[in-house]
Order: sequence, then C-alpha cells, then structure tokens
Amino acid sequence: MELLRQRILAEGENLGRGILKIDTFLNHQLDADLMVAIGEEIARRFTAARPNRILTAEVSGIVPAVMAARALGNIPVVYARKHKPITMREPVYVETAPSHTKGGEVNLMVSPEFLHAADRILIVDDFLATGRTIEALARIVQYAGATLVGIAVVVEKTFEGGREALQHWHVPIEAMAIITDMSDGRIVILESE
Amino acid sequence: MELLRQRILAEGENLGRGILKIDTFLNHQLDADLMVAIGEEIARRFTAARPNRILTAEVSGIVPAVMAARALGNIPVVYARKHKPITMREPVYVETAPSHTKGGEVNLMVSPEFLHAADRILIVDDFLATGRTIEALARIVQYAGATLVGIAVVVEKTFEGGREALQHWHVPIEAMAIITDMSDGRIVILESE
Repeated sequence: MELLRQRILAEGENLGRGILKIDTFLNHQLDADLMVAIGEEIARRFTAARPNRILTAEVSGIVPAVMAARALGNIPVVYARKHKPITMREPVYVETAPSHTKGGEVNLMVSPEFLHAADRILIVDDFLATGRTIEALARIVQYAGATLVGIAVVVEKTFEGGREALQHWHVPIEAMAIITDMSDGRIVILESE
Repeated sequence: MELLRQRILAEGENLGRGILKIDTFLNHQLDADLMVAIGEEIARRFTAARPNRILTAEVSGIVPAVMAARALGNIPVVYARKHKPITMREPVYVETAPSHTKGGEVNLMVSPEFLHAADRILIVDDFLATGRTIEALARIVQYAGATLVGIAVVVEKTFEGGREALQHWHVPIEAMAIITDMSDGRIVILESE
C-alpha cells in the first residue's frame, strides 16, 4: 500500500535494534481513515479465501482487524485477551507469546464460545516480526479445530524471520507494508507492486 | 440506541454484583457494523461540541472511539496505554485507575506528543460505572492544558454513580445504552427517547 508506505516513511521512527515507532497513526494515536483503507486492502487480498471470522490479539491488532472484518461483509472479530477478565469463563484456549511492552511472556486467551471447528479464520495483527504472536494465535485456531485460511499484517519486518517461521501453516501471508532494512537508522520499505 | 438496547437484552449476561458480560459484540468478540452505528450516534451527539481529538483507554474503548472519530470527520484518536511500550518516551502523563481484569490499580499513560493545550477533547469509553477510569482520563486532559468538551460511553450503569462523580467536569455525558437495574438477575435498560 503506497499510502501506508508514505506515512511510515514520513512519520515512522527507527529507534534502533529493529524497533519501529509508528505512534502517530497505529500504536498510540490512530488515524481512522487510514485504518479503513488498510482494512479494505486486507479484505481485497483475502476475499477469495472466504474467512468467516477474524482472530487478532489486543491491543494494536484490533482496529485493523475490525476494519478488515467490515470490508469482508461484517464477519465477527475475536481478539485474544492478555489479561483474563472476570467475565471470561473457564475453560479457555491459552497460548503464550513474547511481550513487546513488558519483556518476558504474556498469555493470549480466547474463549471457545467464539472459535468453532467449522470456522475459516483469518489472523490479523499490526506487526509481523519474529512471528511468535501469530504462531500463538494459529495454535489457538488449531486447538479449536478451525481452519486457518490466511495471515494479514499491517507491517512486516522481513529481517526478523517471521514469514519463514510461519511457512509451516501453508497459508498466504500478506503484509500491507514490507520493511526490508532498518540498519544504521534506515527505514527501507518495498515499493508497492 | 434501540439497536444496542436490543442486542444487550438478547446477548448480555448478568453475572451478578453489577457485572455485565457483553462478550458477543463488545468485549471479546466485536461486531464491526454495530460499532460503526455506535460511532455515528456518538458523533451525532457531540458534533456541536467541536472536538478535534478523542481520548480513550485500551482495550475496549478503542473501537467505539475510532468509529466516532471517523464519523466526526476523521479526527485523531489517542488511547491511553496501560503498559509502557518501549516506543514511549518520557515524560508521559500518567494517572491510575482501578483494574477491571486484575484487581488493584492500573496506570493510564499518554504521551504529550498527542495531547496539546489547544485541543478540544472528547473522551470515549466502553463502560461508565464508578467513573474512575474516565476521571483518570479527564485529569490527563487537564494536565495537558487541553479542554474537555464531552464524555461518551457505550454502556452506562447508573447504579454505580459514575455520572454523579463526573459532574464536576461540567461537560455533557452521553451513554448509548443506560442500564438502571441489575439486581436479582435483571438487566433493565432505559427505552430510547
């Protein structure tokens, strides 16, 4: 997506060690219209896969997921919780993923009420880096006996190897912006086809 | 909103002690089209207040806030973080609010990059119960020297006193559904005007 590419180049900050700050429109402040455009592009790339539900993880995956869900005909979105709310009944599907904010690991929890064996699941998240968060979500899809049909992310950092780590799921992986290099303060993003 | 009222009556669960579970479309699974309708109704009620930015708190306030922002002409949304991401620089505005998932208290943090003295802020959240989360957000608005112009919530539980607790801000408070009674397993919601 050229629009997203331009926004990252204009507003993204390379904080070193592969850390990209895009707080102006994705991770702290949100640009609703840009999120709609991202959702529409995700939908365009995955309509043929016929997902009937989207799975994401709190926090920053939720808005792109909801916008994609709307563009796919208002399919439901379920977001994995990182802290168990008092409204969540046992049993739950639970997997662990690395925490980007706290270090260590965080639980991702999904109620079986919202993932069924007949479901065709599209996973949506904000970043694809090492792939470990998405790996955890894909395992939860597997626990439910549902079918994973695709993985969509807003931003991929190719140099962290996530795409390779997720190949074993044999589903299409689509990134709306693909960053190939963040060494020496650079932010290099692939030109859109 | 009659649509929201009907959905809560059909799908909400009264878990006792004032706890309302609406995981089917708001707090775990999300219904994108319903969130759009809620956002449009929030915008209708606050257009005259001319907000130029929305402040909310992660997690469940974010989607209603983004939908309202879009309906208000794509004003930016900033969401208070509960865990400090590595991308967030000091100094930050920080307030504490009660945690609904973990007990105890949680920090709400907003970067001064995204709250300015000239801003006219609409606060959006999913629930108005005791009002303590919204009180914390309103204080952050005050720290930034910005002007609070209104408070919008998806669901208000009148019997927890939040509206009274927030009166001292002297701004309009609008709830898209107003629950007046949850005693003895009931869920009583005001009829829409």
